Amino acid sequence: MPTEREDRLIETVFARHSADGDDVLIGPGDDAAMLRCPRGERLLITTDTLNEGVHFPAGTSAHAVGYRALAVSLSDLAAMAARPLWAVVTLSVPAADEDWLGGFADGLYVLADEHGVQVVGGDFVRGPLSITVTAHGAARPDAVLRRGGAGAGDGIWVSGFLGDAAAGLEVLKQRLAGTASSLSETVQKELVRRFCYPEPRIELGGRLAGIATACMDLSDGLLTDLPRLLRHCGLKGRVETENLPISDALRDFADPDDSCRLALAGGDDYELCFAVPRENEPRLKALSGELQLTRIGELHQGTGLRLTRGGRPWEPPDSGFRHFS
Amino acid sequence: MPTEREDRLIETVFARHSADGDDVLIGPGDDAAMLRCPRGERLLITTDTLNEGVHFPAGTSAHAVGYRALAVSLSDLAAMAARPLWAVVTLSVPAADEDWLGGFADGLYVLADEHGVQVVGGDFVRGPLSITVTAHGAARPDAVLRRGGAGAGDGIWVSGFLGDAAAGLEVLKQRLAGTASSLSETVQKELVRRFCYPEPRIELGGRLAGIATACMDLSDGLLTDLPRLLRHCGLKGRVETENLPISDALRDFADPDDSCRLALAGGDDYELCFAVPRENEPRLKALSGELQLTRIGELHQGTGLRLTRGGRPWEPPDSGFRHFS
Repeated sequence: MPTEREDRLIETVFARHSADGDDVLIGPGDDAAMLRCPRGERLLITTDTLNEGVHFPAGTSAHAVGYRALAVSLSDLAAMAARPLWAVVTLSVPAADEDWLGGFADGLYVLADEHGVQVVGGDFVRGPLSITVTAHGAARPDAVLRRGGAGAGDGIWVSGFLGDAAAGLEVLKQRLAGTASSLSETVQKELVRRFCYPEPRIELGGRLAGIATACMDLSDGLLTDLPRLLRHCGLKGRVETENLPISDALRDFADPDDSCRLALAGGDDYELCFAVPRENEPRLKALSGELQLTRIGELHQGTGLRLTRGGRPWEPPDSGFRHFS
Repeated sequence: MPTEREDRLIETVFARHSADGDDVLIGPGDDAAMLRCPRGERLLITTDTLNEGVHFPAGTSAHAVGYRALAVSLSDLAAMAARPLWAVVTLSVPAADEDWLGGFADGLYVLADEHGVQVVGGDFVRGPLSITVTAHGAARPDAVLRRGGAGAGDGIWVSGFLGDAAAGLEVLKQRLAGTASSLSETVQKELVRRFCYPEPRIELGGRLAGIATACMDLSDGLLTDLPRLLRHCGLKGRVETENLPISDALRDFADPDDSCRLALAGGDDYELCFAVPRENEPRLKALSGELQLTRIGELHQGTGLRLTRGGRPWEPPDSGFRHFS
């Protein structure tokens, strides 16, 4: 609920890139944005809140906060195989710091521009640092990927590497606290980048339509997220932990057991987790370009998630289910 | 980023009323909601964040918080003459208190049901108490009301009474602090109700299409909001303060000067402020049922807002522009 000065600041931040696509009939500045929905497609809507101290540490750069706030919502659209269109952004800040807001907008628009997302509205309020992004996308109804729909025998796949973001968060906290690290600067930066700048798998999501039978994004870690997909499918999952994709950077950061724990329970990776029937695997492999795709397990009749190591049942040293974060 | 227990709690809160309209193809529980946009209409999107201690006092009932969080967004749709369709809700709470969440959901759904709004998704995170509602509506493109578009000579009108909500906030704070009041219980309750349970003027907004030439909702108070409409119209506004609609309850609460100040600068009323040419006034008067509509001034060539009292220029005792709240 800002005054004229803040009105101008909002215009600077949110209307920096004019939301002037053919589909944006009214952009920021009125009581609501007015949009033309794409014909023959369905609208996908997702909303996420990021709180300082909960979803990112105090002191995280404004640029990273802006980028990441949009990334987590675009990741949900990717998981539904939707093409991103528009976002509205609410920003709660303790004070109207122009430098901070400029950095936030820079980070937000880097990603928005990369995916052609138009920021069509928002709200700017006083309060603890918090960002909510509501992202809108479109998809043909027959192309949308859901959490349910996979069958017994389908493989469980993930994109990219798991656990890097959780390691990156630890490194970021150490750096913000000024703690020395024995890790190389290159590895530290790579891990922090993986926490601060997750890449929503929009292109992959779109290409999985017709190949994957179920899909979701990994925000809370495999141990928390995969059971959700399993419940939607009404199936049991068996994951061979030795197949989890662990990056070289994570291997430098932690020993094999801790790397496995971070890959299972770390969260914040924003990779896609999806089910693929055997007969679709050749088409899936044709997709795999620079982005690694890994078969980590299989769906079976039953319920629950079973972890194995070397084919035998296995429990992680710390089961790491994060409560209500 | 909740665990299984919280997943169930979310289902209890957000999926209590099944989002199962023809237009809701996927409701809460997947990565994104999937909707069918209405044909021949445009989509309107608005988003608002309410923070405890900024937008409502600590101790406000969960029921009021839930109702009000949706009301402020619906009010934006009303100002655009849109028909509400769907909402997504993010809720940040310090702890997962089932009673509180139940009360919140009760309040939210009272209003959602009244206006046929379907809650199609949300997010539930840990943090300071804060709610963001993104509301979606539809309107025929030729019926949408904007902030700009009025002409010199058009009257400035407001719905309902102004200043009650600001008085209600004061009374609510006194009651939460246990301070005794000389006001009657009836008046106190009425004013608190006006703060906690604003009525989004959805029906009025829809009926103003073709009558009003510009429209907005009053969230921050006339002194802050009206200049926005004036800038959009490129006109000067002249408001005769003796014409401001002051309720009997507000007259009981404050002396005439303070009532005027609250009506001008108080905020939180969520009434509509709109411009109507003389020739449309008969059609406007035909609309006026139980809801009072008051002509408070007029638009002129020029810029800025001029207040008058008894026809003479007048400055309010405390100009009351609220900074960045």
